[in-house]
Amino acid sequence: MYDLVILGGGPAGLTSGIYAQRARLNTVLVEKMGVGGQVSITDVIENYPGFPSIGGPELIQKFEEHARKFGLPIELAEVTSIEDRGKFKVIKTSEGDFETKAVIVATGAHPRKLGIPGEKEFAGKGVSYCATCDGFFYKQKDIVVVGGGDTAIKETLYLAKIVNKVKLVHRRDALRAEKIWQERALAEPKIDWLWNSVVEEIKGNTGVNRVVVKNVKDQTRKELTVEGIFIFVGIIPNTQFVKVKKDSGGFIITDEKMETSIPGIFAAGDCRAQSLKQISTAVGEGALATSAAEQYLESLR
Amino acid sequence: MYDLVILGGGPAGLTSGIYAQRARLNTVLVEKMGVGGQVSITDVIENYPGFPSIGGPELIQKFEEHARKFGLPIELAEVTSIEDRGKFKVIKTSEGDFETKAVIVATGAHPRKLGIPGEKEFAGKGVSYCATCDGFFYKQKDIVVVGGGDTAIKETLYLAKIVNKVKLVHRRDALRAEKIWQERALAEPKIDWLWNSVVEEIKGNTGVNRVVVKNVKDQTRKELTVEGIFIFVGIIPNTQFVKVKKDSGGFIITDEKMETSIPGIFAAGDCRAQSLKQISTAVGEGALATSAAEQYLESLR
Repeated sequence: MYDLVILGGGPAGLTSGIYAQRARLNTVLVEKMGVGGQVSITDVIENYPGFPSIGGPELIQKFEEHARKFGLPIELAEVTSIEDRGKFKVIKTSEGDFETKAVIVATGAHPRKLGIPGEKEFAGKGVSYCATCDGFFYKQKDIVVVGGGDTAIKETLYLAKIVNKVKLVHRRDALRAEKIWQERALAEPKIDWLWNSVVEEIKGNTGVNRVVVKNVKDQTRKELTVEGIFIFVGIIPNTQFVKVKKDSGGFIITDEKMETSIPGIFAAGDCRAQSLKQISTAVGEGALATSAAEQYLESLR
Repeated sequence: MYDLVILGGGPAGLTSGIYAQRARLNTVLVEKMGVGGQVSITDVIENYPGFPSIGGPELIQKFEEHARKFGLPIELAEVTSIEDRGKFKVIKTSEGDFETKAVIVATGAHPRKLGIPGEKEFAGKGVSYCATCDGFFYKQKDIVVVGGGDTAIKETLYLAKIVNKVKLVHRRDALRAEKIWQERALAEPKIDWLWNSVVEEIKGNTGVNRVVVKNVKDQTRKELTVEGIFIFVGIIPNTQFVKVKKDSGGFIITDEKMETSIPGIFAAGDCRAQSLKQISTAVGEGALATSAAEQYLESLR
């Protein structure tokens, strides 16, 4: 019987783990694929204080080393459900059950899909959700990027260093990304801007070769000849396996101490409603969640 | 007229500054003495993710370099009051007025005093609130430490490396510090433990030479012969200059977006009620406060 099982090895989960080890809780961190979460597929991070500019994989490696230094055990398993048995919980995973008094859900999120024709068909054959994973395949080629938030703009700037031309399709006439990223993108000559536009269809044979774009103001359509399309239109939380109160997007609702609607289950990071989706805030939430879990464990005695 | 004035140069304020610069807000950070806050007088920090073990001054220097890299201006001035004029605020300081649309209060806290006879008289002559500042003066001498929280225990371990003997006086029979610090302290032979005890008086001539300790269980008193006393019994927020809603301890009350009771005034870090008083959480709160300030500035347009 564990005191605390932490689900997810991104910044929130690893911070929870550091605090839990230092609080001498009997803890294990369970991660599906390998630590890192979305940070590990991020090219560069400039707003986690202490590191003016660092690669995502490098930063998360530092987090992991930090957690391991204090003895945090990390196990690879995919969680399928959490059963609430009152004073303890049973976590069902691909590698068997974990019994624990408290749980922190820090499972993050994954990229949202557009849900348009051709997207599924050409996934991995020209359709991508990760520039640092797949950008290399598009050296000196033309591509489309969809989105206007932080991720879309950062990934576009990364791709612009590799490809011949990025055609950026954004449904509004202004970007949501941090101003500093906006400025850098607007100054980048390799980007063509298609404002007030949405992608309707992805076409091709063995791989992508055309993308149908509609202008939402004048309803005109055109086909862009490109070999790839990168989609950055938001995230969906990885929270299907846990039956706590969530918002309409599936993000877990907590109070300011990171407590969910079920006593003994806590949430932190990108999977949480109201989270700012920043490493800075994930780290703060991870520390808070462990502190709340400690208090909960005290209350069980 | 600034968009945003940040008060305080600790982890919360510097993080707010990094985010504000990246959001291209017209910002200045105002600090009383020099950046750092309480971190700069902390010997070692082991729970800010990414740095398994780092000196407080070294960590805060990294934060400052990070903020300066993105162009954050830092001015030295002591704030005396904030006047709310609705859509803008006037910040009165020792170096003149700052006019701004929004303010983030991240002024931290300072050590609480015991309020006992001799404490004021011998301040700086044997009475100290900072081990890394004054520990050096007590090489191979005997001292008293008062307190049982994280700070008390960390500072005691630091002092144990320098002095001959630490007599630790704590009013309860158990420590509140992180378990990992408790274990290290309880294993340290240079510490004598005086549980269930309080300091009643500090005596001396030109400097401290005796400390009167009362056992609160059996009401017995004894005099300890020591040359110094270090007091770590909590913190008092630096919030006198701002008339927002506060709790009974003077900590600023905010909602989960870090908004205070006055629109346009935000708070982050140790000066805030409910804060966990950790660098991890100060950083998260700093990011949240700037995000909320950005939204507020948008709403003014």
